Amino acid sequence: MEFSSKLLENAVNEISQLPGIGKRTALRLALHLLRQPKEHTHNLSHALLNMVNDLKFCTSCHNISDNDLCDICTNPLRKDDVICVVEDVRDVMAIENTASHKGLYHVLGGKISPMDGIGPHDLNITSLVQKVQTGQVKELIFALSPTMEGDTTNFYIYKQIKDFEVQTSTIAKGISVGDELEYADEITLGRSILNRIPFESSLKL
Amino acid sequence: MEFSSKLLENAVNEISQLPGIGKRTALRLALHLLRQPKEHTHNLSHALLNMVNDLKFCTSCHNISDNDLCDICTNPLRKDDVICVVEDVRDVMAIENTASHKGLYHVLGGKISPMDGIGPHDLNITSLVQKVQTGQVKELIFALSPTMEGDTTNFYIYKQIKDFEVQTSTIAKGISVGDELEYADEITLGRSILNRIPFESSLKL
Ligand SMILES: [Zn+2]
Ligand SMILES: [Zn+2]
Repeated sequence: MEFSSKLLENAVNEISQLPGIGKRTALRLALHLLRQPKEHTHNLSHALLNMVNDLKFCTSCHNISDNDLCDICTNPLRKDDVICVVEDVRDVMAIENTASHKGLYHVLGGKISPMDGIGPHDLNITSLVQKVQTGQVKELIFALSPTMEGDTTNFYIYKQIKDFEVQTSTIAKGISVGDELEYADEITLGRSILNRIPFESSLKL
Repeated sequence: MEFSSKLLENAVNEISQLPGIGKRTALRLALHLLRQPKEHTHNLSHALLNMVNDLKFCTSCHNISDNDLCDICTNPLRKDDVICVVEDVRDVMAIENTASHKGLYHVLGGKISPMDGIGPHDLNITSLVQKVQTGQVKELIFALSPTMEGDTTNFYIYKQIKDFEVQTSTIAKGISVGDELEYADEITLGRSILNRIPFESSLKL
């Protein structure tokens, strides 16, 4: 691509670093911004900068948060002895939308995936096991995507905590096997939380 | 969508203002940026800010430029008496890629489209007619998309300059009628410039 402006070229190059956005789409977006009042681009740029500079991860559940502890962990109305284990922040948002879970969360930050070079130590698993070891967790709900990686991760965690006094359950397989959790519709996802079954039984299915 | 962070919510809202990007894609992009080193987002934001703050339009041809006159208008090797009339900046880039045009450009900034409320006075037509009136333009090449709006715009300009000493041509209809110029492949586009025909003959086709 031949650019008549270094400024435009830089912007297009930076935009096209984003996943799923090629050079042509990046150019279309850049030219769109140039046709808008400058304030639009100012607002966009500052929202991105503020986000990456100031956003935190909850020190307890690893959810995205504006404070050291997130709004869910500090909410006195939530049951702090029921913890829903999820892959990432989008899953917290998806489950919160269903209003089916009254406890807390634990965000792993991914799932075990040897193919992608992600092992247990790349995930927030140690801090979860430590929570269970305190004896104050009554139930862990595994709410990972029902894929091979999700099952592997569930089972890895299960082995580390099965000797402690804690119930384990997994979300009901109302979600089609192999699908990503975040694309499930609200009703299916909410029902799968309410119909959760003991993790041991899920191994026999 | 329930957000656990105002910072994330703001970023997602701003990203989803971009054309063709919904809330879900915006969230995916924001979470992607959060997983990258902060420098990526700094570079992106500053590239966008620099672009909208400092980018100029060439005072002669209306092409995007880092200076008052663009690199094409100031290039002594280009023929300044052959002007290729295009809709927008992307068309300049597309034609430059084919290396088939050795003259200058004139960027209209759109095409006449009553449906979209775009009339002749919203476009850079007056400055083009003035260039022709000086008598120093030998040939105008109409290189607008061969759509109804493109044809209307060509004809509107043609009527204003036909009494002056200037040849007019349009790009050969190697490009499928109804297609947008910017999606044409390089060879078709290059050939359509080389095989251009006098504008009057194009009216009879
Ligand atoms: Zn938290
Ligand atoms: Zn110029």
